[in-house]
Amino acid sequence: MNDADGDAVLLRDFAARSPRALARAISVAETGRGAELIRRLYERAGHAMTIGLTGPPGVGKSTLGSALVRKARSLGKSVGVVSVDPSSPFSHGALLGDRIRLAEHFTDAGVFIRSMASRGHLGGLAGATADAVLLMDAFGKEVILIETVGVGQSEIEIAELAATTIVALQPGSGDSIQVLKAGIMEVADIFVVNKADHPMANQLKREIRSMMEMLAFSGWVPELVVTQAISGAGVDDLWRAVERHAAYLQSSGEIVERRREAFAHQVRQLALGTLQRKLDRELASEIVAGADPYSAARSILRTFGVDTEEPEEGGRPSHLRASVKG
Amino acid sequence: MNDADGDAVLLRDFAARSPRALARAISVAETGRGAELIRRLYERAGHAMTIGLTGPPGVGKSTLGSALVRKARSLGKSVGVVSVDPSSPFSHGALLGDRIRLAEHFTDAGVFIRSMASRGHLGGLAGATADAVLLMDAFGKEVILIETVGVGQSEIEIAELAATTIVALQPGSGDSIQVLKAGIMEVADIFVVNKADHPMANQLKREIRSMMEMLAFSGWVPELVVTQAISGAGVDDLWRAVERHAAYLQSSGEIVERRREAFAHQVRQLALGTLQRKLDRELASEIVAGADPYSAARSILRTFGVDTEEPEEGGRPSHLRASVKG
Repeated sequence: MNDADGDAVLLRDFAARSPRALARAISVAETGRGAELIRRLYERAGHAMTIGLTGPPGVGKSTLGSALVRKARSLGKSVGVVSVDPSSPFSHGALLGDRIRLAEHFTDAGVFIRSMASRGHLGGLAGATADAVLLMDAFGKEVILIETVGVGQSEIEIAELAATTIVALQPGSGDSIQVLKAGIMEVADIFVVNKADHPMANQLKREIRSMMEMLAFSGWVPELVVTQAISGAGVDDLWRAVERHAAYLQSSGEIVERRREAFAHQVRQLALGTLQRKLDRELASEIVAGADPYSAARSILRTFGVDTEEPEEGGRPSHLRASVKG
Repeated sequence: MNDADGDAVLLRDFAARSPRALARAISVAETGRGAELIRRLYERAGHAMTIGLTGPPGVGKSTLGSALVRKARSLGKSVGVVSVDPSSPFSHGALLGDRIRLAEHFTDAGVFIRSMASRGHLGGLAGATADAVLLMDAFGKEVILIETVGVGQSEIEIAELAATTIVALQPGSGDSIQVLKAGIMEVADIFVVNKADHPMANQLKREIRSMMEMLAFSGWVPELVVTQAISGAGVDDLWRAVERHAAYLQSSGEIVERRREAFAHQVRQLALGTLQRKLDRELASEIVAGADPYSAARSILRTFGVDTEEPEEGGRPSHLRASVKG
């Protein structure tokens, strides 16, 4: 069976909603060979409710994610989960435990769970995640949860693939304030203070409110929800906040802008991956003996048709109409 | 006074070894206007002993760095320190304390200390750091210490600007093993177990040795040194290990390869910064209505003269010193 035949079978099974076909499509994309598949399936996507869930290690993110999946299932919605492992040196080894917490959903055919840790993808981990979300969406998943251990800016970007981003914080952790200071504040649509029974839960709520007062919001103002994911307390509140945010995105038309940004981000990562590989080949062949780094960089940039004699402003006039299907 | 006159004065003061001229040259480079300066000073560099020092927050890295500076000064060497602040959300706020620990050297004219946290540089933080190291080297600093809070791969890369990379780990911390698992193992020339009096110091030594048994080394096998930086115990041993490694690099000729890699890394970062800016301009103007991400990326890549009909394979990153045994 050649590739084209294989693709045809895969597309047929995918259309017939075979979970194995979805798994295989994601695997194909993950290894950097998904361009044709995604080209074929792209127009089916764009209907899912996508929820990003991020926060520092130990916050109880997976218990929270699992509770959200349970809630969505109780409403009869089919669910996809993308669990992202950034393989960071400081992810505190919580990942195996995280997966175990999702195990209650493994036997539910309405829930499709995929862990991503691929570094082989053209667009890096963010690209692999974006492909997985797009494929789950095209497959017909109604709710897609993108779960990341938020240990850095790139993991936050992954959560931003979602239309709605939940940032979970835990009381009594200095990390939380570090998170807020480091720009994670600005990406949250909903804050969750998990571990509601913690003696410092109220203090964290006050801290988040103070931080929010320092920011100017146009449109949506982030909601603050208190949960205790292990007991399930507050999960209904959280779900209602997610639904309110989704309704806001639709009624304000902001969903179009969010999708445009996520799309632009994915295109950027894909193009950047290819540029980096070409750059590495040029580096291997073009380093000139005795040149200083700036002269060498200039010489390499010429092979990309980029001239760095003059710092550029603006760029070439746009000849194509910029827009993305909403 | 125009720019050319200003540059001439700066170059004259730099040649006269004015620390203010060095500080100013680094500032110029940090704001992305250093290409001409570096072109002029490049041939003077290449003589310094460069030492990278990295490790997780809390390991006592700055106390260790300060002890190394004291040792180098006792040997009559002039010293430059580049202290890198990656501004990570999880850097645990230790940075101010770190700087305070270096304060004993502030009044020593033979020690030049520079903190880097610039995001404005063409080549990002790594580029700004590389420029600072190059300028200190050209200035005549004999020992240059590059200190980073190792919270991610990019910070490790910064330490790798150095000919000799020291990875400091602390006993009784789960982080340490995470660090080892995450590829930091492969970049270390010297491991330091700091806080020698900790009850779990011996266990950490055993763990590091076990990890090393899983790796294949060609040439230098990383040394393992135990220190107690606060009391100064073990710092002489550490310095001797650094000198042995420096001698090995010279005698094996590997120093040439290391410098080439550091150079290639810097050129890569510089070129990549420019490519990313052009990419972002193209993104803003070229996103095609209805296109899928792969088709859009392909269209943008054509503006760089890159054709992406076939995905290409990337190789192993060149900065890894060791590979995992098959």
